[in-house]
Amino acid sequence: MNKIKKVVLAFSGGLDTSVILKWLQEVYQCEVVTFTADIGQGEEIEPARAKAKRLGVNEIFIEDLREEFVRDFVFPMFRANAIYEGEYLLGTSIARPLIAKRQIEIARETGADAVSHGATGKGNDQVRFELGYYALQPDIHVIAPWREWDLTSREKLLQYAEKHDIPVEMKQQSGSPYSMDANLLHISYEGRLLEDPAVEPEESMWRWTTSPEKALDEPEYLDLEFEHGDIVALNQERLSPAEVLTKLNRLGGEHGIGRLDLVENRYVGMKSRGCYETPGGTIMLRAHRAIESITLDREVAHLKDDLMPRYAALIYNGYWWSPERKMLQTLIDESQLSVNGWVRVKLYKGHVMVVGRDSKTDSLFDPNIATFEDDRGAYDHVDAAGFIRLNALRMRIAAKTRKR
Amino acid sequence: MNKIKKVVLAFSGGLDTSVILKWLQEVYQCEVVTFTADIGQGEEIEPARAKAKRLGVNEIFIEDLREEFVRDFVFPMFRANAIYEGEYLLGTSIARPLIAKRQIEIARETGADAVSHGATGKGNDQVRFELGYYALQPDIHVIAPWREWDLTSREKLLQYAEKHDIPVEMKQQSGSPYSMDANLLHISYEGRLLEDPAVEPEESMWRWTTSPEKALDEPEYLDLEFEHGDIVALNQERLSPAEVLTKLNRLGGEHGIGRLDLVENRYVGMKSRGCYETPGGTIMLRAHRAIESITLDREVAHLKDDLMPRYAALIYNGYWWSPERKMLQTLIDESQLSVNGWVRVKLYKGHVMVVGRDSKTDSLFDPNIATFEDDRGAYDHVDAAGFIRLNALRMRIAAKTRKR
Amino acid sequence: MNKIKKVVLAFSGGLDTSVILKWLQEVYQCEVVTFTADIGQGEEIEPARAKAKRLGVNEIFIEDLREEFVRDFVFPMFRANAIYEGEYLLGTSIARPLIAKRQIEIARETGADAVSHGATGKGNDQVRFELGYYALQPDIHVIAPWREWDLTSREKLLQYAEKHDIPVEMKQQSGSPYSMDANLLHISYEGRLLEDPAVEPEESMWRWTTSPEKALDEPEYLDLEFEHGDIVALNQERLSPAEVLTKLNRLGGEHGIGRLDLVENRYVGMKSRGCYETPGGTIMLRAHRAIESITLDREVAHLKDDLMPRYAALIYNGYWWSPERKMLQTLIDESQLSVNGWVRVKLYKGHVMVVGRDSKTDSLFDPNIATFEDDRGAYDHVDAAGFIRLNALRMRIAAKTRKR
Amino acid sequence: MNKIKKVVLAFSGGLDTSVILKWLQEVYQCEVVTFTADIGQGEEIEPARAKAKRLGVNEIFIEDLREEFVRDFVFPMFRANAIYEGEYLLGTSIARPLIAKRQIEIARETGADAVSHGATGKGNDQVRFELGYYALQPDIHVIAPWREWDLTSREKLLQYAEKHDIPVEMKQQSGSPYSMDANLLHISYEGRLLEDPAVEPEESMWRWTTSPEKALDEPEYLDLEFEHGDIVALNQERLSPAEVLTKLNRLGGEHGIGRLDLVENRYVGMKSRGCYETPGGTIMLRAHRAIESITLDREVAHLKDDLMPRYAALIYNGYWWSPERKMLQTLIDESQLSVNGWVRVKLYKGHVMVVGRDSKTDSLFDPNIATFEDDRGAYDHVDAAGFIRLNALRMRIAAKTRKR
Repeated sequence: MNKIKKVVLAFSGGLDTSVILKWLQEVYQCEVVTFTADIGQGEEIEPARAKAKRLGVNEIFIEDLREEFVRDFVFPMFRANAIYEGEYLLGTSIARPLIAKRQIEIARETGADAVSHGATGKGNDQVRFELGYYALQPDIHVIAPWREWDLTSREKLLQYAEKHDIPVEMKQQSGSPYSMDANLLHISYEGRLLEDPAVEPEESMWRWTTSPEKALDEPEYLDLEFEHGDIVALNQERLSPAEVLTKLNRLGGEHGIGRLDLVENRYVGMKSRGCYETPGGTIMLRAHRAIESITLDREVAHLKDDLMPRYAALIYNGYWWSPERKMLQTLIDESQLSVNGWVRVKLYKGHVMVVGRDSKTDSLFDPNIATFEDDRGAYDHVDAAGFIRLNALRMRIAAKTRKR
Repeated sequence: MNKIKKVVLAFSGGLDTSVILKWLQEVYQCEVVTFTADIGQGEEIEPARAKAKRLGVNEIFIEDLREEFVRDFVFPMFRANAIYEGEYLLGTSIARPLIAKRQIEIARETGADAVSHGATGKGNDQVRFELGYYALQPDIHVIAPWREWDLTSREKLLQYAEKHDIPVEMKQQSGSPYSMDANLLHISYEGRLLEDPAVEPEESMWRWTTSPEKALDEPEYLDLEFEHGDIVALNQERLSPAEVLTKLNRLGGEHGIGRLDLVENRYVGMKSRGCYETPGGTIMLRAHRAIESITLDREVAHLKDDLMPRYAALIYNGYWWSPERKMLQTLIDESQLSVNGWVRVKLYKGHVMVVGRDSKTDSLFDPNIATFEDDRGAYDHVDAAGFIRLNALRMRIAAKTRKR
Repeated sequence: MNKIKKVVLAFSGGLDTSVILKWLQEVYQCEVVTFTADIGQGEEIEPARAKAKRLGVNEIFIEDLREEFVRDFVFPMFRANAIYEGEYLLGTSIARPLIAKRQIEIARETGADAVSHGATGKGNDQVRFELGYYALQPDIHVIAPWREWDLTSREKLLQYAEKHDIPVEMKQQSGSPYSMDANLLHISYEGRLLEDPAVEPEESMWRWTTSPEKALDEPEYLDLEFEHGDIVALNQERLSPAEVLTKLNRLGGEHGIGRLDLVENRYVGMKSRGCYETPGGTIMLRAHRAIESITLDREVAHLKDDLMPRYAALIYNGYWWSPERKMLQTLIDESQLSVNGWVRVKLYKGHVMVVGRDSKTDSLFDPNIATFEDDRGAYDHVDAAGFIRLNALRMRIAAKTRKR
Repeated sequence: MNKIKKVVLAFSGGLDTSVILKWLQEVYQCEVVTFTADIGQGEEIEPARAKAKRLGVNEIFIEDLREEFVRDFVFPMFRANAIYEGEYLLGTSIARPLIAKRQIEIARETGADAVSHGATGKGNDQVRFELGYYALQPDIHVIAPWREWDLTSREKLLQYAEKHDIPVEMKQQSGSPYSMDANLLHISYEGRLLEDPAVEPEESMWRWTTSPEKALDEPEYLDLEFEHGDIVALNQERLSPAEVLTKLNRLGGEHGIGRLDLVENRYVGMKSRGCYETPGGTIMLRAHRAIESITLDREVAHLKDDLMPRYAALIYNGYWWSPERKMLQTLIDESQLSVNGWVRVKLYKGHVMVVGRDSKTDSLFDPNIATFEDDRGAYDHVDAAGFIRLNALRMRIAAKTRKR
């Protein structure tokens, strides 16, 4: 075991990371710096200060990163229309790179030589944290307690907590039996009853959205305004990135929007079942595609679609800080310069319907050409014959020579 | 103008193709064979016989192709999870190759040297028909009246009909002001009010689905059983392909599922606004992804996702009969051999929610490994450290050498 | 036929474009502006002035575009390692966008409303010219005489020339029986004996390179220095882009490098046989891959490789000025920021061998890690076990459950 | 350490695997089964029998796998035109899956519960072996001595050999200072002087090919006949797969063909410099592309090109036995059904030049359409105008609306 001097721990203030804090002090005999961030998980972060102090921490970082999270991570990802495996909006994946980056920055600031996190040894999050650490600080020491210690069950964890006088109230998140993760983009559920993918989750599991059945009985229209692919205003009210997502989450939640129940393929090799609530993100994705539909060139849009699954997998697998993700982002961001305009959606009982879109400055929709009415010569029908015949030529030659 | 002997016309029995029939006889001085197919458009096809007879046609083909359509076209396409531009389920596109194939077969059977269709010179359908014709019969003559004649407005068309004694009742489809296309997979609307993409379509436009607001108040559960990627039973009742889709359309329609309002990029180069109802297809797509999620290997699933936009564009653009579409289909079909099992969905007010999935024979979901509980050694957490470190190695080397 | 006021003709001064010039004056009754560019085709361009004058042209543009051609077209393309269909270095394709751009600029400058070129109706070049024209000036009139006139054989062309007093010496390029195209990147041959792809071309056809058999008997070493992916110096001598390519052509030619004999798929739908000499480009491509091999991250290199065939097809098909080519270029150029260093190649009798490469500033080759000798802990062999086991996990689970 | 009963060792008979054999017996206290295969490495395999016996092995497998190697591994790979990172013909990569497969089969046959190999912990080969083992037998124990033992230098290895009475003559392969690997497809060199990628390898390193300078002074023509993408005859002499490759290696070697010097990106994360001789493979690749150029549809060829880097990376990384490689192979093999015909190449001093190709049964080259001469109406030039105008339409609309 390497001799560690000081470690920066991603500290939520909950039971798990409190035990880790103690365990690091005990096993590594090193100083621990805690880092607690508000990325919209919906819990107070200030209490983490008292908890860290009580556990003997001197350097305590508590930060509100919500704007940075949405502006520099969520929005860039949505410019790509990123979806993993046709369904998942990457809510957990996109928060890890930000946490990793801040831990490394704090390590530099405080002279720490190690970082640590509370992710388990079976999941994707360990990969996402650690690929970020290594990419940003190649010689950093990484301590992943869940891969090292013998506290392999909840009972052992509780015993350890009791033995080391870690407060009892620091229990399981919100009393839920599920393993949960939340940030401004989403909340996720894994484990327990969900481990049988044949079984429907209980209604009581969901935290952020009302069920479609109990959602508002009136549909609601919403106007979203885009600049360079990002939402800058809702119903004509200009908002900051985090404000946009907060408001979309509230509206989506009231209308039962954004629940998802799926089986996904983890990067570490197994399938796992997860349930997700992404109310605001679900609205954003539909609206973003709609504004792109009138402002992006066809082949640019298709190029983006062809590259999207690769981009999404990079984020899912933890490669946010990789050069290939940045390279793809360059292309994606370039494509968004013309993605300006507004989209109208209708929200109703779990459903988002796009009902209108326009761009004063960048619309490529040309009603004179698209029209079924007389277009007064804007388009020459005869051109289509040549277009078709040359596109068919290779198949005709093949058919003539009896080729397959 | 080439001398044409006999032409096989795709004949709906409506005003447009009746005028075309007459025009072909008059202008090309050739015999016309009519071909009318039931592909689930929801209109009687038998009346087309009388109309064709009245217009002097001797060889009249009237056929129910619903099973072939779903079995050999719709189902193979859904194996690919095909979506064009992130939204469109390709309902119109997938019917054209079948019509084209039958027209060519009938041309061979009847000794015809030409084929004709009623698609306009601005749309995708002319391309889809004609690429099919040419690929299957390279020396066929293709007559596309809308690109040739001067009946460029509805008024001229009606005048022509009147002048040639084409029955008055053969008017616009169902009295709708929209340009519509329907088959067992979907119904579409284009033109008129839709030509302004900023404006929401009127509720009265939609024909197949009740609005989510007026849909059934009770959610409905539905079990779908898959064999080799195709649905073979609903709620444990074994059904033929066309029966499956018919039933899904009814259920989806009752629950307000499958409406879509979008702007798409046509192959001929312009953007156009279309509205679609695909109730059964919308359910099928979600369910198919769900059964794949537990039966497909991760990398096979990702390969399919990477190729999907290309496959979808091929179908959209009319390349069903191309060698590259067949090549991709070979890969896709091979992947579906293990896609066996069932999926449960919940239908409610426009929304399809997957709530369960399982496969007795082919599940790759291993609860012993995925579990958050003790897995008794099925998975060694320590492996993750090496996995991460080697995946990070290139980025660490780059960071050390201060590379970008 | 539209009434044309003034047309900018891409004018080589040879027989074909001289006839076109006359034909435009006669048929369109319009003023003709000639544009003749030196892009390294190896012929004097100044004589074109007298020829144009003699044919009554008042506005004559004669320009040396060699530096612009290499700097803004050839070099950016080589950053992508672009090869069409595994073999072709795109020598003809890459010159057309520059000609098209200048024609449009001259049209604006001279108030012309049309442009014209001498490419035939069967080839790719008409597409490349015209897609460029339309992308840069959407309302321009395009006149493609080879698609319009009835001078469909060489005899008719010669008769027309004689009748209109077009000088006799303006004959076939260099007395070669082949259809040829040349610029600083390459020279190409098509037609005649080459129309049978089974037959080897005569040695006398090749113009730029000595045959490998007659090439220099001594191998020659050459050092190429790269900055941001472009060659900036040869054997430590700093050169301009056009100078680099000129020198590489001379060296490559002396060593019999860069001949190619292939059958390619034209965008207009047929296969055609072409022979090419690209001496400098062949050296550049090998050297560029070599400098990338030590300066590019693995996944960035693979991303580039995955996108390369698409990028190459875009250029081949004439989409240089399309938004999707520009989008890809953004990504490619971004990747080249670290592509700095030198490469040593050995030239000998048709063969280019890379024998050394290094980068003082950007090498990602880490001898401490790559070594077969003791690396003193830079790499932990044990990591590989975990790396392999997790990468194998999905296949192990599948094999256990008897999955395919 | 797991209790191992019996292990199947990939045994070359050289020093390294002899030490491993002993070490397995000593450390694991288990029975060792040896497996020695002739895959064309150019060394006698029969002597391995005596060596194994002398070290106390009872179950000795010595097999000639050359035909299987070429038929089932090399040829299928060449159908894809597989090249890794633009240069490498995958010579080492393609042999490992066969060895792994036979080891697993022998393990089943002999009741062994483990397999072992002599690949180091830094290279790709460990991954290729072990991914194969796990995919084919998920519960197999894998012993990788180079990752486990402390014999980390050649000195320690020699000491161990001496101490355990392992014969002295079993020294470094052929007295070369390089780490080498050979099979019927290629021979490779790594390590020592090559660890500085700036330095040219000594001429004495190369074993299989004469240098281009000393190669035959007369060029040689060679006819290759293909059936379904595989070579079945050379100069009209029908040969088995291994005979084909053996003869191509001899011819290529005499003409100095197939040397390669490159820096590649290993799957385990670092760059490494390798030199390769692949004389026969270099000829095969060029010839295969040539036969495809006249027998494959354009879009099928492009689809193959787009997928090729991915396929090549799968093989390089060790995923031969993965479901995604098999899925891609299905597509590739399907494409080869029409790849029938012959190709003529000219070999001369390191250079392979394709000079002719034809297919009696499957040529898609249509001289009537491709011709520069009058084609008597096979192709209508006017079609090109429409083709271009519709392909340009989206760019014209964008330019008109001043869009980017």
